[in-house]
Formats: sequence, C-alpha cells, structure tokens
Amino acid sequence: MEEMTGLVTSNPDLVYNALSFATATLGIAFVYFLVSRNRVSPAYRSAVTMSAMICGIAAYHYWRMFTNFAEGSWNEGYRYADWLLTVPLLVAELVVVSGVSKAVAKKVTPRLIVGALLMIATGYPGEVAEFGSTERTVWGAISGAFMLYVLYELFAGEVGKALKSQAGEVGKKLNNVRYLLLFTWGIYPIFYILGDSTSWLSEQIGLSVEEAATVIQVGYSASDVLAKAGYGLVIMSIALARSESEGYRAA
Amino acid sequence: MEEMTGLVTSNPDLVYNALSFATATLGIAFVYFLVSRNRVSPAYRSAVTMSAMICGIAAYHYWRMFTNFAEGSWNEGYRYADWLLTVPLLVAELVVVSGVSKAVAKKVTPRLIVGALLMIATGYPGEVAEFGSTERTVWGAISGAFMLYVLYELFAGEVGKALKSQAGEVGKKLNNVRYLLLFTWGIYPIFYILGDSTSWLSEQIGLSVEEAATVIQVGYSASDVLAKAGYGLVIMSIALARSESEGYRAA
Repeated sequence: MEEMTGLVTSNPDLVYNALSFATATLGIAFVYFLVSRNRVSPAYRSAVTMSAMICGIAAYHYWRMFTNFAEGSWNEGYRYADWLLTVPLLVAELVVVSGVSKAVAKKVTPRLIVGALLMIATGYPGEVAEFGSTERTVWGAISGAFMLYVLYELFAGEVGKALKSQAGEVGKKLNNVRYLLLFTWGIYPIFYILGDSTSWLSEQIGLSVEEAATVIQVGYSASDVLAKAGYGLVIMSIALARSESEGYRAA
Repeated sequence: MEEMTGLVTSNPDLVYNALSFATATLGIAFVYFLVSRNRVSPAYRSAVTMSAMICGIAAYHYWRMFTNFAEGSWNEGYRYADWLLTVPLLVAELVVVSGVSKAVAKKVTPRLIVGALLMIATGYPGEVAEFGSTERTVWGAISGAFMLYVLYELFAGEVGKALKSQAGEVGKKLNNVRYLLLFTWGIYPIFYILGDSTSWLSEQIGLSVEEAATVIQVGYSASDVLAKAGYGLVIMSIALARSESEGYRAA
C-alpha cells in the first residue's frame, strides 16, 4: 500500500502505548460483556450484547491501528470505520435501557441511528482534508450539526424525557449516563480541532504538527475507552438495577 | 505462492478500507448470532446458528483477502471458497424460517443447496478467465442460470408460495426477506460484469482496468455484508417473531 505513509508524532512511544492500552481494555471489555449477558433479564440483554459488540469491533480496529502504527503505516479510515459501526450501537443500547415504551423505541431508534451514521460519515472527509482547509471546517460543522441533533434527542426528545423522568437509583443512573455521553462525545470535536495544527485552538496552545498528531491519537484513544467500555459498564449497571427491580434473578 | 500477483486498483485505500470494514462487520456478526441463538425457540435455532457460521466463514475469508491485499498478493479464489460454503447455508436457513412443512423442507433444501453450489462452482472459472473471453461469458451465463433456478424456487416454487402466503408481521417480514435476497443476489452479476473492464457495461461507463477492479472489490464487499450480516438480522427477526407467536420465552 504505497499511498499510506507513517504517522509522524512528537511522542511515538506515548501513541504506541495508548493504542496498545485501548486494544487491551476494549478486548477484555468485549469478553466481559459477552460472559455477563445473563446477569440481566432478557428484556435488557440486547443492551449488554451491544456493549460486547461495540468493544469487540473497537478492539479489532485498535489492534489494526496499533499494528499499522508500529509498522510505519497509518490509515485514519480505521477510526471512522469503527465509529460507523459502533456509534449507532451506542445510541441504540441507550434506548433499550431508557425505559421508553416499545412504540417510542421503534420510532426513535432508527432516527438516532441515521443521525449517528451521518455524523460519522460527514466527519471523515473533514478529518482527512488538509489542515486549515475550508473542507475541514465545513465537514466538521456538518458532522457537528448531526451530533447536536442526536444529543438533542437524548436530552430533550422523547428519550431524553424518559431518561430524566425516572425515580430511584435507576433514575439517578440514567441521568449520569446522559452526562457521560455528553462529556465523552463532546471531547471528540475538541480533538478534531486540536488535531489540525493550524486551527485557532492549536495555535493558542502552540501545538506543532507532530504534537497535534500525538494529542489527537492519545485523545481519541482515551475517549474511545471511556465512551465504549466505561459507558458499557454504566449501561450494564442500569440494566442490572432494572432487572433486579423487576424480580429477575440470574440462574 | 508464486502465482499470486498483487491486485492493481485505482483506489487501493478504498479497497483496503472496504475489506477491513467487511472483516470487522462479519466478525462481530458471527459473535452476535452465536450469543443470540437462545433468543429464538429450538425450532428456529438452526437458522441463527447458520447465520453465525456464514458470518464466521466470511470473516475468515475477508481477513485473508485483507491481509493478502495489503501484502501485495491477491487470490480471487477466496471469494469463491467463501461463497461455496456460505451460499448453500443462506438458502438453507431461509427454508428453516419459511414455514414450509418438514416434508417439503426435506425435499426442497437439497435441491436449493445443489443449485447454489453449482451457481458458485461455475461462476469461478468465468471470474478468473481473461477479460472479454468467451469462457468468461459462457461460465457467467451458466452460473446465472443456476441463480435463476434458485430464485425461481424461492419466488415461485413451494418455498416461494410458503413465503408469500403467510399473514401478519411474519408474512410481511418473509416477503421482505425475499426481496432482500433478490436485491443482494442481483448485485453480484452486475459486479461480475463491471469487473471486466472490456464488458459492454464497463465500456459504457468508461471504466479502466484499475477502476473496474476497485468497483468489483468494493461492490462484492458491500454485497457480502448486506447478504450475510444484514440478511442474518432479517432471518433472526423472523425467527424471533415466530418464536414469540408460538409462546416461546427466552429464560
């Protein structure tokens, strides 16, 4: 693959370690969610299954990125291929444990999935566009608009209302998961901007091209671990609490 | 393997990403169907098991193709080895959820499997024949005839009648799966023709040899994801609806 060139970063050891750490964490989270499915009742099991799939897909892509990086080749496409598969699952599993009716879930889930897909698909051309180019700004803004739409649904739409209207421990956890989502998702645009060493933000900080590359790779890796494995744990604790309150006992 | 030569495409990055994307999607679909088997009643479980096997076989072959492509070698045989194993399973699992009697299933399944095997086995010599050669056209036509036979059985034969005669949600889903099959299968001959840069269709579009190679690889990859993982999801939703309507509850 002659077109691919290695990724030049200011701190290759740190990037190497971050990619390896993410591979290990997501790989083991995949196994953990797989074997933990039966701890929750059948109604919420698909949420835990989705967590397993998300972490499995991500572990695969981190393994690829890690190997490529070590071999001196790099393909930014992996991150977007990964997100294209995992982000729709992240929003779908939140709906499963949100407590909305089946009818609402059936209506809202496809909308959220399409919004998430468009967010990722429009982010990619911006990510691979030249630093400081209009393309990078415009695609980033379009992608960001889809992110705002998804977040709007999860905060103010029917799912959002369901998430914040519930009492007790489940209600508290549901509220937490919304903020975890907002926090972990909100990080991505920041790294998208910091990854462009010519951006206003990067220039304020004084990031060189190589430093920006380090920041973006380590930042995306940390965000992915939080937004996938960490988020999966919170989803699982909600599914456990719901299962318990509905009288389910794992056999 | 001295016979192998690298595949020259107009857009190696896109082919690389498509092969990786298919590997990840089919690999995770394999795991998903494996862990989801018990959600459907024993009568339909073999259909979900077959989906798992199909996706597992395909993930393996995509992994091989991806690795070979990245290393600059290429073996078109992988696709056909994959299809030889997976396409008979694709038709067999449709019979399982179709609602035909056991007697009809026992009679029709071997016929469909033989038809599918012959479709793939006769397609291969055409695929590896020289562009524009008579062999390519003749083998393509023979393979296409077997495809028409299989589609005839699924649309107008006993299975076809069973698929379109059923009421309610299951009937609607069965009707959808027939069209998904027709659509996803119908794509393959188009890419077979487009993959030959000297074909009438490729010349109309003005595809160079390298562009035709990109189109065929990306096209086959997308079709495989839809016809295996996507189709498996539809088969599973039919099996779930049937299980539920027959009073089955996952424990």
